[in-house]
Amino acid sequence: MKVGIKIMPRDVILDTQGRAVESSMKSNGFELLSCRVGKYVEVTVASENKAEAQSQVEKMLKEGGLYNPLIEKFEIQIN
Amino acid sequence: MKVGIKIMPRDVILDTQGRAVESSMKSNGFELLSCRVGKYVEVTVASENKAEAQSQVEKMLKEGGLYNPLIEKFEIQIN
Repeated sequence: MKVGIKIMPRDVILDTQGRAVESSMKSNGFELLSCRVGKYVEVTVASENKAEAQSQVEKMLKEGGLYNPLIEKFEIQIN
Repeated sequence: MKVGIKIMPRDVILDTQGRAVESSMKSNGFELLSCRVGKYVEVTVASENKAEAQSQVEKMLKEGGLYNPLIEKFEIQIN
């Protein structure tokens, strides 16, 4: 089962990459209010059970260091 | 309106970052079949109309160079 993990910088964190994209887009004439840039990790696990796959991936995130809780937040997406 | 853009390496592209995460996770005892790493961009546009917001963001992607069609594919997520 394929599990998607969206990892974004926490709201209180200054996202320099997002700011750079925002100002680049604006100077190219595109209209946007704000922009934040994060990561997206797609993990394929053997389990076909949604709850089990989710708990495996949560473990990778929290114990495996797949995200940095100090500056990032994550959201698990399973279709 | 907030528009999410998931940008992943195309399937035919060797994703070195994903491979690195995969082997790191495996050597730490986690079980996974594969892993791919991409980007996630959250753009806030003024428009509150879904179709309009989507077309604005598609324009940023295709004309603004927000993704590289040679090696990446994108998926727009609007809630």
